[in-house]
Amino acid sequence: MNFELTHIDTETSARCGCLRTAHGEVRTPIFMPVGTVATVKGVFHRDLSHEVGAEIILGNTYHLYLRPGLKVLEEAGGLHKFSSWDKPILTDSGGYQVFSLSDNRKLTEEGCVFRSHIDGSRHLFTPENVVDIQRIIGADIVMALDECPPGTAEYDYAKKSLGLTQRWLERGVKHFDQTRAKYGYEQAFFPIVQGCVYPDLRRAAAEHAASLSRDGYAIGGLAVGEPAEQMYEMIEVVNAVLPKEKPRYLMGVGTPENLLEGIARGVDMFDCVMPTRNGRNGMLFTSQGVMNMRNQKWAHDFSPIDENGVTFVDKTYSKAYLRHLFASDEMLGAQIASLHNLGFYLWLVREARSHIAQGAFAAWKRDMVKKVSVRI
Amino acid sequence: MNFELTHIDTETSARCGCLRTAHGEVRTPIFMPVGTVATVKGVFHRDLSHEVGAEIILGNTYHLYLRPGLKVLEEAGGLHKFSSWDKPILTDSGGYQVFSLSDNRKLTEEGCVFRSHIDGSRHLFTPENVVDIQRIIGADIVMALDECPPGTAEYDYAKKSLGLTQRWLERGVKHFDQTRAKYGYEQAFFPIVQGCVYPDLRRAAAEHAASLSRDGYAIGGLAVGEPAEQMYEMIEVVNAVLPKEKPRYLMGVGTPENLLEGIARGVDMFDCVMPTRNGRNGMLFTSQGVMNMRNQKWAHDFSPIDENGVTFVDKTYSKAYLRHLFASDEMLGAQIASLHNLGFYLWLVREARSHIAQGAFAAWKRDMVKKVSVRI
Repeated sequence: MNFELTHIDTETSARCGCLRTAHGEVRTPIFMPVGTVATVKGVFHRDLSHEVGAEIILGNTYHLYLRPGLKVLEEAGGLHKFSSWDKPILTDSGGYQVFSLSDNRKLTEEGCVFRSHIDGSRHLFTPENVVDIQRIIGADIVMALDECPPGTAEYDYAKKSLGLTQRWLERGVKHFDQTRAKYGYEQAFFPIVQGCVYPDLRRAAAEHAASLSRDGYAIGGLAVGEPAEQMYEMIEVVNAVLPKEKPRYLMGVGTPENLLEGIARGVDMFDCVMPTRNGRNGMLFTSQGVMNMRNQKWAHDFSPIDENGVTFVDKTYSKAYLRHLFASDEMLGAQIASLHNLGFYLWLVREARSHIAQGAFAAWKRDMVKKVSVRI
Repeated sequence: MNFELTHIDTETSARCGCLRTAHGEVRTPIFMPVGTVATVKGVFHRDLSHEVGAEIILGNTYHLYLRPGLKVLEEAGGLHKFSSWDKPILTDSGGYQVFSLSDNRKLTEEGCVFRSHIDGSRHLFTPENVVDIQRIIGADIVMALDECPPGTAEYDYAKKSLGLTQRWLERGVKHFDQTRAKYGYEQAFFPIVQGCVYPDLRRAAAEHAASLSRDGYAIGGLAVGEPAEQMYEMIEVVNAVLPKEKPRYLMGVGTPENLLEGIARGVDMFDCVMPTRNGRNGMLFTSQGVMNMRNQKWAHDFSPIDENGVTFVDKTYSKAYLRHLFASDEMLGAQIASLHNLGFYLWLVREARSHIAQGAFAAWKRDMVKKVSVRI
């Protein structure tokens, strides 16, 4: 994997780049739609490519490991072939899901024993076997196993947790370097920087991760309950340490405003379930603000869903029609909203790139943060 | 509306035709996807046109009347504009849904009082107001209000019910002829022939309907529990009476086999929720037979969903992938199956047309009936 910085903003820490993977190029800053269990919920891969303009999607190791399972994924020749997606894929390590979804998890130095949220079966994730699993999935970018403490974690717990994450990281790196890709194409390994909301822990974590000289670095454990300002501060602390010439991925973030603030602080990659999950609940993100499509106020509004939208649904369907679909619990509502929201998120990062390249990012971002946060 | 017969089979009663409406031509025999509440569940209108090849879709008066309601539909300029579908639409009269869905329905000579299945509110459908409602919906083809007795109805009940349906039909015709289309384009009115499984009632009903000289005729009250052979017999009885030069629409039917047998007996139009409803449950109809995609047997089958399929999903996704989506309750499974099934149904009627035109229908139909009925 190779990363080239193409533009660096002079007013902020924003940058544009190009990430070259075995499955093609990804221009950064980029948003990665979340394809939890081998599908970005409600969206055909064709539409992800042609309507949304997605350049890379995310898969969840925890979910894929449980369903369809490694045997099927290996027989298929990896997740790309299994799901018919020929562009890059990044997989998380499963750590976050083990802590948020599974029952009876138990953390040890060795790894994490957990019970499946589906059938209660018992499993063990270790820093080594999550690398093996992601080798079988065939992700272009593989993530290290980490512990992701809650946003409210006390300093002592956060420090102890970080120690474990760092020892796991070293084991993961070692195992990754001792193993080979299964399908002939190159995979990259990203450490995850933890440390909760404590600047000294974050700084130490970033220094430790940077010392391992990988192709890119992730910032984990943010947007887990802490105030946004604290998240922004942690991003600044971490990005001051991480090598400038490598991509930085802020995990699980976030709102359009979060993306813009992250980009301004030098983040290159984002993922979040928000555009699809909130979309399924009737929330639309647009360049003019946020709309709740279940609201009665749209019942008689026959104007297009989003005049500035980039996907075909935006001008095909009206607000009144979409509101009717949500009021009637019709699945087409979720499909339209998911496609629209992902289209908007990808539009937002493309616009950010274009303004960074033109040296006009800071003013555009200030204006856009105001617009996207309005409730309309 | 105008209907032209283009080919008449010599071995069976099958025929090809062209139905010209204000929203374009429909070639017959045709299958009409069911767009219950202004949406064919899970399918974008774009994909209905370009992937499925749908030429006309159905809307349900009962559902549309309750949601989004007449005010919204009228403000939108009718259902075509509201749902962004510019091809023909046929609406049923609501009679069937009143009997199958609503609570506390009460039948009188005037009409049918019922309570909404959504909020329990009280409503009245009359032969006249369902015409008014379908004028507001703006359907190209409007259906008469009828009583649809169960498949097990005794003769005496069936005869009494038919009497009411016939009196309602006369009132409906009169009201239709005394009112005008709301949006400037022509609408047609189809009577519905009832009579349960009793040949003399069916014959009398067909004669009565034919005497009213309308643009087309529907056969209702079949596929409601009676054996298929009895349904086929009733179609023969009715079609022997209905005018040859007018289209015949068999309501709510059916399986691929039912379609082929109906076509062989001179039916021109069909609608059914089966491709979408069964699709959402994991059942796929193909030219090689029926597949249950929830079945473990597909878990390791990486061949395309349907080598002979006409929609993009058929060759894009594998059986193993689709099985995984159903096993994981992922909505993309329902989307893929719905699109595939509708594509198959439309392919089937196109093939029927082509074989009728070539004078090769009977042998093709015999062969195809065997194939489509197999469980694979």
